[in-house]
Amino acid sequence: VDVSDREKLVDLMEPLHAADIADLLEQINAYDRMRLIRLYDKEFDGEILSELDESIREDVIGILKPEVLADAVRELDSDDVVDLLEDLDDSQHEAILDALEDSDRVAVEQSLNFPEYSAGRLMQREVVMAPDHWNVGEAIDHLRSSEDLPEHFYHVVLVDPRLRPVGNVTLGKLMRSRRDVALKSITEEMFHIIPATRDEGDVAYAFNQYHLISAPVVDENDRLVGVITIDDAMAVLDEEHEEDIMRLAGVGEGSLSDRVIETTRQRFPWLAVNLVTAVLASLVIAQFEAAITQVVALAVLMPIVASMGGNAGTQSLTVAVRSLATKDLTGSNVWRVIRREVLVGLVNGLAFAVVMSIIGVLWFGSMQLGYVIGAAMVINLVVAGLAGTAIPVLLEKVGVDPALASGAFVTTVTDVVGFFAFLGLAVVVLL
Amino acid sequence: VDVSDREKLVDLMEPLHAADIADLLEQINAYDRMRLIRLYDKEFDGEILSELDESIREDVIGILKPEVLADAVRELDSDDVVDLLEDLDDSQHEAILDALEDSDRVAVEQSLNFPEYSAGRLMQREVVMAPDHWNVGEAIDHLRSSEDLPEHFYHVVLVDPRLRPVGNVTLGKLMRSRRDVALKSITEEMFHIIPATRDEGDVAYAFNQYHLISAPVVDENDRLVGVITIDDAMAVLDEEHEEDIMRLAGVGEGSLSDRVIETTRQRFPWLAVNLVTAVLASLVIAQFEAAITQVVALAVLMPIVASMGGNAGTQSLTVAVRSLATKDLTGSNVWRVIRREVLVGLVNGLAFAVVMSIIGVLWFGSMQLGYVIGAAMVINLVVAGLAGTAIPVLLEKVGVDPALASGAFVTTVTDVVGFFAFLGLAVVVLL
Repeated sequence: VDVSDREKLVDLMEPLHAADIADLLEQINAYDRMRLIRLYDKEFDGEILSELDESIREDVIGILKPEVLADAVRELDSDDVVDLLEDLDDSQHEAILDALEDSDRVAVEQSLNFPEYSAGRLMQREVVMAPDHWNVGEAIDHLRSSEDLPEHFYHVVLVDPRLRPVGNVTLGKLMRSRRDVALKSITEEMFHIIPATRDEGDVAYAFNQYHLISAPVVDENDRLVGVITIDDAMAVLDEEHEEDIMRLAGVGEGSLSDRVIETTRQRFPWLAVNLVTAVLASLVIAQFEAAITQVVALAVLMPIVASMGGNAGTQSLTVAVRSLATKDLTGSNVWRVIRREVLVGLVNGLAFAVVMSIIGVLWFGSMQLGYVIGAAMVINLVVAGLAGTAIPVLLEKVGVDPALASGAFVTTVTDVVGFFAFLGLAVVVLL
Repeated sequence: VDVSDREKLVDLMEPLHAADIADLLEQINAYDRMRLIRLYDKEFDGEILSELDESIREDVIGILKPEVLADAVRELDSDDVVDLLEDLDDSQHEAILDALEDSDRVAVEQSLNFPEYSAGRLMQREVVMAPDHWNVGEAIDHLRSSEDLPEHFYHVVLVDPRLRPVGNVTLGKLMRSRRDVALKSITEEMFHIIPATRDEGDVAYAFNQYHLISAPVVDENDRLVGVITIDDAMAVLDEEHEEDIMRLAGVGEGSLSDRVIETTRQRFPWLAVNLVTAVLASLVIAQFEAAITQVVALAVLMPIVASMGGNAGTQSLTVAVRSLATKDLTGSNVWRVIRREVLVGLVNGLAFAVVMSIIGVLWFGSMQLGYVIGAAMVINLVVAGLAGTAIPVLLEKVGVDPALASGAFVTTVTDVVGFFAFLGLAVVVLL
């Protein structure tokens, strides 16, 4: 790029997969990125756009010449175009829709009518289907004569006269059966139909749970409108995990290529919530100022109790959030899980109570201080197990994403309980 | 189950997918599980075993009658049998191997020779292959006459005379091409060969990055030994995410169906590490006992600074750990990312410094206390951004899983720096 040698660049990029080129574009800085795209120009592939992170996709589209963009977009399947359009502003939106052929344009616009993050957005409109009264020979002849098949497909979807899907036939079975065999007789045992309005997270769950490869999508009249394939489901699964892990850490929607100011804005609210939490905990401490002035060791030891509780709470809450996401934690076992977490907190609490009592005695030479910190530890770890499980379950019940909000609540509980138990017991026992 | 009505049970379970039955078995308690399995008996399907969580799989295998177990295992593909065997003790191991037919047994034993978590363990041995000089007609005839094809396959792998894979032909292309077309001329553009020793995490990454559907696996002589399909890769991706999220929270390998004592043991070491961290922070506080006795407000406010730093550090570290896992954070952009995180810390630090100064003034009526806590906040949030990114990157460099160990290090840094900056500045400014 530095010497602006276009041919050499094209040679170098030739063997790379679109996903790798996209990664490359994400990792270099904005100026190099612009120069590279200008130089690469006509070779720019539609798939690179699909693979790019949203945060820089808009920039890249702005840099591309309109005719290069049009070429690039026309190569894509309808689901990839929909994915592209979701994140663009209106003028770019129009530019891309204009580049499409009429039939593709209608398909894309229909998909955009489905709610965001729904199966309707995820599916591709290109479906290979056959009437359910056909036999193998008819299906094969139909496939051979079709011009416009999707690049990859794994099933032929059987539909009844009203276009409702009734079964899936794998290509393997189709190929190995005699021409006069009825398609109906060789459908797959596992057949899962997805409503277009279903949330994409639930779609990914179904693919993972039932080992689906592709599944037909139907509209509100049960008519076939598209198909979702496992690679799309895998991408969603990946995104959902990313979201969970980021939300648990209070990072929101960020990505590595965001600017400082965006990242700051994304993280600020989480830190603000934490500040409120921390101030609440401080208010508890403030009630015990007199005690701290008398026994300054209390100030030294109190963060230990709160910190251990916070960690144990995070452990319980992470297990609960994950189990809720994978639907392993349900109404039928929630009490057993809570009981287990509380018992785990109790056992670990007792173990650390012993350790801390010893530290208390050795460090400050006070048996009673040891007892106090030990007892506070047990209390806080039991509460951590209880809150760490119950809070995410309750949040899920009232429709709030537990990954998003549990952390702040659980930490508040363990901080407040930790400081209160330790300082409160200290006042009773020591003063 | 309660009335031991076997026929009704079988009727009820009939429409359920093996994965759902496995989930059901995981969610009920051990006694009900035993009764249900005894009652279900001969209907017990091999796939249920595959879907079960490791922690209760061993129990379930112990409950099954040997002949039911043998039937169940014989239905499975080789990769599922390998997956089963990995977690069993020796006597159960033998029982399952004995149940297999000789050829399957050899295949399974060969797979077990590959290292754990390698592509060799993940692959299935059943491959559909064709010599690279065949044409479409020969391949189709071969497929039609083969008895023992895998249940699902998506590609025919072309191999040279030495059994080295040279290309993939999709079933769709095969079906649509004329019989006299050479297979070589219709291979896929994207062809990714996986060495049997490659780590399964890298395999899942390749599937996700390059949108693979299936990929051939080769031994050290580049000869085809098996094939990995996208559903296996999706399962690995799911597991790896689970591992990352659990390790970040310090939960280890646990699962919901573990017993209290196992869970306690898994979590104990993480809490122990946290205790050391917390004690280190307390040692810092202990240096300032005199100051705290004079200005007890310091004890009240100091957890706020540490807590904000800990949260900001966790944010940075989660982004770093995720980016390392997805290979978005590399040597080429590590400095830019660190600079960004530090700047984000600085900006958020300044914002919260203002907020905290106001709180300090309003609450304790001291301008200087406000300045001190504000300055400490800025210092700690900048350090959090730096440590939160640099520590995972360094751990990855020295070969330690950053998800596993970063948390403890980063929290130690933010706690120590937080207390030290706040109390140290307080001594200088206030006393």
